[in-house]
Amino acid sequence: MRNILIIGAGRSATSLIRYLLDKSDEEELFITIGDLSIQAAQRFTTGHPNARGIMLDVFNDVQRKEAVENSDLVISMLPARYHVEVAKDCIEFGKHMVTASYVSKEMQALNHKAQSKGLVFMNEIGLDPGIDHMSAMQVIDRIRAKGGKMLLFESFCGGLIAPESDNNLWNYKFTWNPRNVVLAGQGGAAEFIQEGKYKYIPYHRLFRRTEFINIEGYGKFEVYANRNSLQYQSVYGLENILTLYRGTIRRVGFSRAWNMFVQLGMTDDSYTIPDSENMSYREFVNLFLPYSPSDTVELKLRHALKIDQDDLMWEKLEELDLFTKTKTLGIKDATPAMGLQKILEDKWTLAPHDKDMIVMYHKFGYEIDGKQYQIDSHMALIGEDQTHTAMAKTVGLPVAIAALKILNEKITTPGVQLPMAKEVYEPILKELEEHGIIFKEEEVKYAGYNPDNVH
Amino acid sequence: MRNILIIGAGRSATSLIRYLLDKSDEEELFITIGDLSIQAAQRFTTGHPNARGIMLDVFNDVQRKEAVENSDLVISMLPARYHVEVAKDCIEFGKHMVTASYVSKEMQALNHKAQSKGLVFMNEIGLDPGIDHMSAMQVIDRIRAKGGKMLLFESFCGGLIAPESDNNLWNYKFTWNPRNVVLAGQGGAAEFIQEGKYKYIPYHRLFRRTEFINIEGYGKFEVYANRNSLQYQSVYGLENILTLYRGTIRRVGFSRAWNMFVQLGMTDDSYTIPDSENMSYREFVNLFLPYSPSDTVELKLRHALKIDQDDLMWEKLEELDLFTKTKTLGIKDATPAMGLQKILEDKWTLAPHDKDMIVMYHKFGYEIDGKQYQIDSHMALIGEDQTHTAMAKTVGLPVAIAALKILNEKITTPGVQLPMAKEVYEPILKELEEHGIIFKEEEVKYAGYNPDNVH
Repeated sequence: MRNILIIGAGRSATSLIRYLLDKSDEEELFITIGDLSIQAAQRFTTGHPNARGIMLDVFNDVQRKEAVENSDLVISMLPARYHVEVAKDCIEFGKHMVTASYVSKEMQALNHKAQSKGLVFMNEIGLDPGIDHMSAMQVIDRIRAKGGKMLLFESFCGGLIAPESDNNLWNYKFTWNPRNVVLAGQGGAAEFIQEGKYKYIPYHRLFRRTEFINIEGYGKFEVYANRNSLQYQSVYGLENILTLYRGTIRRVGFSRAWNMFVQLGMTDDSYTIPDSENMSYREFVNLFLPYSPSDTVELKLRHALKIDQDDLMWEKLEELDLFTKTKTLGIKDATPAMGLQKILEDKWTLAPHDKDMIVMYHKFGYEIDGKQYQIDSHMALIGEDQTHTAMAKTVGLPVAIAALKILNEKITTPGVQLPMAKEVYEPILKELEEHGIIFKEEEVKYAGYNPDNVH
Repeated sequence: MRNILIIGAGRSATSLIRYLLDKSDEEELFITIGDLSIQAAQRFTTGHPNARGIMLDVFNDVQRKEAVENSDLVISMLPARYHVEVAKDCIEFGKHMVTASYVSKEMQALNHKAQSKGLVFMNEIGLDPGIDHMSAMQVIDRIRAKGGKMLLFESFCGGLIAPESDNNLWNYKFTWNPRNVVLAGQGGAAEFIQEGKYKYIPYHRLFRRTEFINIEGYGKFEVYANRNSLQYQSVYGLENILTLYRGTIRRVGFSRAWNMFVQLGMTDDSYTIPDSENMSYREFVNLFLPYSPSDTVELKLRHALKIDQDDLMWEKLEELDLFTKTKTLGIKDATPAMGLQKILEDKWTLAPHDKDMIVMYHKFGYEIDGKQYQIDSHMALIGEDQTHTAMAKTVGLPVAIAALKILNEKITTPGVQLPMAKEVYEPILKELEEHGIIFKEEEVKYAGYNPDNVH
């Protein structure tokens, strides 16, 4: 038996665990799931001969080291900041490691040690980062193999509500960490390149500088820019590309409506509100509006944001009970972002039979012999249910597949790795197709942002 | 002779030094001015029998300790972050200290040591903080002495261009650190209270939530909220006050125009721009606008900010040469804020005969026996020239007066102090009047923000 240790049994671990358990007889795997909550750890293992759940506190050195030492490979599904202690143990005891997180500086610093011990530390192999890297590199490598020069790369991803469960005015529900949704886009201007020109969008304009995309069979979506498009330039080998842009996908109209919260200052997470616990939603909204002894919160908000009487944005606010006097935040020392999250969770939490949806869309513009081409590629996946969500599948399955391939010595390049090599992405993308994670490609006319070559 | 050490001979030290030199015979003072630049240090001392300028590097422990040891009182005019090393030396060698800066945590931590050694560490005794504290406490103490209960305190201050030198469309020039002007308002939402309601304004709305004030003889001004009004609540003993609001004064129209830069993202100081050195002002502006192969930077900006053809805001941008192709930033690795500062400095730098102006305005609302009253108080001062600016006088003179009063044992309470006590502010304000720093008071009808007591 080969021992796999999975640390963190949260929502995105479900499909990962199912995959490995399904293969456990055939592949001779024994799965240990460690979590701070023993209930969570044992949720998937009860009665399964090839698995056990254990209580595991990553801050307990003795517990953690013992669990790592007894495994052949460690998968950390913890938040990224907790990986590094586990990674150091993996170095100490000579174990491979897999995570779905961005490579931190601390992780990168372990590269040489991992290499010298022949250990594979595979990272960024979830959905985004993960499937985005792999599906993009597959097309980029193919374009390069036929002598193409990359002109444009745009990549978009969104975690959304499935069309059949899409029944609110925002066309949105929380299908992953709500806090990350409320804080999305903060922490610095969005940076990207269009036709060789650097472009910057400050947070307070981000949700008004969206672009539209159409996905066959799924309709129209909008995209707002991610913070960090430029950091992918060297990772993807796109140093001289004219257009590089990464973004987040939402249903049309979401961003313009979300911008109301941004403008008011309700997404701020940097200060706490006195007596927030007993504050009504209406009082909360009033914090961000000028004082008036007589004017209503409603009219002050309409005036501040210039919302006309016939604007549907208003209905979106009313749908959230934003102006109610009877509901209170119920959170002590809440930041505005925490207050807003509470209000949204009332309305945007998945109902028992709701399904989620993952959408990914890439555009590849390139040139061969002076002629320009474009390939658009997209993937859409609807979740099975609330356990095996599209999010859990797209994050967990590539992690699981990679882990098994490392154990089986199909992936062997040691060191801190991203799934950029053909040897890695090719078999993984192929196997993901069996699970319904399928990219559809289409050749379209290359447009770029300067079709008539005006200067 | 009593020895005074002044560390930092920058622009705001001129009137401070003149005051002390003028009194040096009569008061038996010997003034040592220490600066990293010996030229700066000797600028005011050459030929003066009671003064000398020395080269002093505050990071050189030996130099600094020697200079402190040889003095009876130390005035630090350095940026606030450099005070603490000097302050520790003052503790070691038993010297008093005076600064015009906000009390940092590190400074506050020295309170007990200063007290036990009987040393006065007087801080926040410049203009703002400084004259604001003193002139406000004088009125507040008087209101309390006659049994009044404070309802409202609003306090505004601005460093502006004098009316006779006010000759650009912005009605503004840099009369102090330009970088602080560009970054003003950043770093968190503005927080204040109006009629007992907490109010928050995010940075990107700050410059559109202004209020107007009139100052007799000087005309109309506008005020935008400072970040930190609430932190003055306990300092001023205003825990139960209904309205507490501090703000920055500008000429009418400045804030609405400045908001254009904020909206575009040009005041961002968190990232650097590739090849900024050779970037034209026009290219700089284009960084913050959507890509277009054909539309002009001008029209894209008009569209992005919804500036109509007949809007004077446009002329303000043109006055800055914002759209020129021929001027370049000339700064390597510039942040947007650094680029904007360069553009503004071209136009907003004081001409040789320009004069500056300081304006301060307080409103005090209070209640006695159920009747409501209000006192408005204001001070306006125009600079002599570019050496003895209104800024240098209002910052430096209270520092100088306080230093002398400490040496003469008129101010004796030991420890880390603010000028909140009557014993401190009363004689200093009186002496400031001799230098033209005079507050004019007026009783007005108490309005508050809820005159009809609507609930």
